[in-house]
Amino acid sequence: MDDRERLTIDEVRDLAARVLVRHGLAPAHAEACADVMAIGERDGGGSHGIFRLLMCMNSIRAGKVALDAEPVVEDVAPGLVRVDAGGAFAPLAFRRGLPVLARKAREAGVAAMAVTNCCHFAALFPEVEAIAREGLVGFAFTPSHAWVAPAGGSRPLLGTNPVAFGWPRPGGDPFVFDFATSAAARGEIELHRREGTPTPPGWGVDAAGSPTTDAAAIMAGAMLPFGGHKGSALSLMVELIAGPLVGDMTSVESLAFDAGAKGAPRGGELLLAIDPARLLGDAAPAHLARAEAVFDAVVSQGARLPSLRRYAARRRAEREGVLVPRKLLDEVRAMLD
Amino acid sequence: MDDRERLTIDEVRDLAARVLVRHGLAPAHAEACADVMAIGERDGGGSHGIFRLLMCMNSIRAGKVALDAEPVVEDVAPGLVRVDAGGAFAPLAFRRGLPVLARKAREAGVAAMAVTNCCHFAALFPEVEAIAREGLVGFAFTPSHAWVAPAGGSRPLLGTNPVAFGWPRPGGDPFVFDFATSAAARGEIELHRREGTPTPPGWGVDAAGSPTTDAAAIMAGAMLPFGGHKGSALSLMVELIAGPLVGDMTSVESLAFDAGAKGAPRGGELLLAIDPARLLGDAAPAHLARAEAVFDAVVSQGARLPSLRRYAARRRAEREGVLVPRKLLDEVRAMLD
Repeated sequence: MDDRERLTIDEVRDLAARVLVRHGLAPAHAEACADVMAIGERDGGGSHGIFRLLMCMNSIRAGKVALDAEPVVEDVAPGLVRVDAGGAFAPLAFRRGLPVLARKAREAGVAAMAVTNCCHFAALFPEVEAIAREGLVGFAFTPSHAWVAPAGGSRPLLGTNPVAFGWPRPGGDPFVFDFATSAAARGEIELHRREGTPTPPGWGVDAAGSPTTDAAAIMAGAMLPFGGHKGSALSLMVELIAGPLVGDMTSVESLAFDAGAKGAPRGGELLLAIDPARLLGDAAPAHLARAEAVFDAVVSQGARLPSLRRYAARRRAEREGVLVPRKLLDEVRAMLD
Repeated sequence: MDDRERLTIDEVRDLAARVLVRHGLAPAHAEACADVMAIGERDGGGSHGIFRLLMCMNSIRAGKVALDAEPVVEDVAPGLVRVDAGGAFAPLAFRRGLPVLARKAREAGVAAMAVTNCCHFAALFPEVEAIAREGLVGFAFTPSHAWVAPAGGSRPLLGTNPVAFGWPRPGGDPFVFDFATSAAARGEIELHRREGTPTPPGWGVDAAGSPTTDAAAIMAGAMLPFGGHKGSALSLMVELIAGPLVGDMTSVESLAFDAGAKGAPRGGELLLAIDPARLLGDAAPAHLARAEAVFDAVVSQGARLPSLRRYAARRRAEREGVLVPRKLLDEVRAMLD
């Protein structure tokens, strides 16, 4: 017996939006948040789908998120836009800022957007994909909660600090990747802890800083970055450019702000957009075609090109809907009472 | 008996410059190239010091590099500067472009510099350090020769594709990192091949795509990115943003251009600079101070903060000079004949 229920993407979106409105979120925020959850469910599901509603609800119930703050878009400089989310969830702030970021990138060639004072619950890939669909090259970075020790360390300092990138492909879906700079997701370690199974090596250290595959010991110690000292350096970069550089919290400060509520990380985000047409002029199409040769060379040798699996899941979900665990749906629907 | 000779940093610089001028490089290029080699020797030596002269000489002897091209700086857009190196080595082009990049970053908040048509032989850390010493946050990316297969692949496609980052620290040396996105440097694998010792696992695959620790098999097959599919995605990003995006060669095209000369990779480079003062205004010092708390938390738990070892080597070299292998010096001095 399949313990999952089939829903259309619209049904996922509507359900999430209704729950959020029922708990006081302003309709524009509920719609933007629900949209991101539906995208996550559509593109592969798991922890980035409607499951994220649980984290959002923790934030709402603990009073850690503003329910109806209108994002304030500020034109800081020819290449800079800041969006102050006013303590609300991030998706509406991104949505309001994107047209300004895109316009500035076209005018100046490159532009940066600092989104501040927001609660982050979503993956970054929808944002860099949206930038790439504007014909721009996009980057996104955000800290999270301090769960990860720097390589060689033993104490949580860094967030799972994702890095996301989007590249426009003429006539096709953008090339997009989005990965945590931690070796594993927090949820994957939690899963091993619940099931009492050892984690693969390299995921974390115990409280004394010794490598361990005991998930409970990692939860009490620290997660590790991917890729040793290189991944650690990258995570530190994210911490800096999406924390202090945008004038917002570090992962340590975010976890302190959460104070055990198990809510979404609170802080800022840095996005960058570069306009190939501004940099290359009439030669842009020819050079974008040379990028296609690189993609072809990845695929033709049997290596996986990031984002192809996501687009395949998307096409399937658009045809057939998505399968959501019934237990999760029961929990979500109970929030409507 | 120590088979190394002690030189001052100035002596290293002078020696490299004399060799380059002796072989036809215009004085401004020779000085800029020699300066970068002296920086490499000073900051830790090894393959980034005067050793790089061998690679430069290969490029010169094979006629793969322009000897006296004057870099052409073009103001492309409010946030974009392009420097066409005209087929010469990269350091002079960077030097000519840096003031424009810095001015644009201060005016627009963020700026990008595309350096094109150049031969790259140096590490990127001197460049991001120079950007950070302007009070700006700096990023640098460049492809190289196609020696690295994407994760899951078997054929060389990507370069060692370094990523470098610089962050200004008030009153101190900038925080800087610079790492290849390959698991190991090409030279390290070559060393194992010469000595007949197995490499650590994860460095490469044989021609059939199977993981191997046989250095000769890796040289005939492909190197691997660091950090599995995440490092592979990052390397692909570098390939795109410092290749087609700046209108210049991919690593595959660079290796084809080299045609066995064992010269420096030929292509472009992308640099980014963000001005914290423009983004944060009067609050910038307070937020930069919060970054210092992050650095302190790395060091205080015994983890290594990237760049501290490099600065320690620099202080020592400034006091005591550097020790250069006598065999290498003999080879270099013979080039003066």
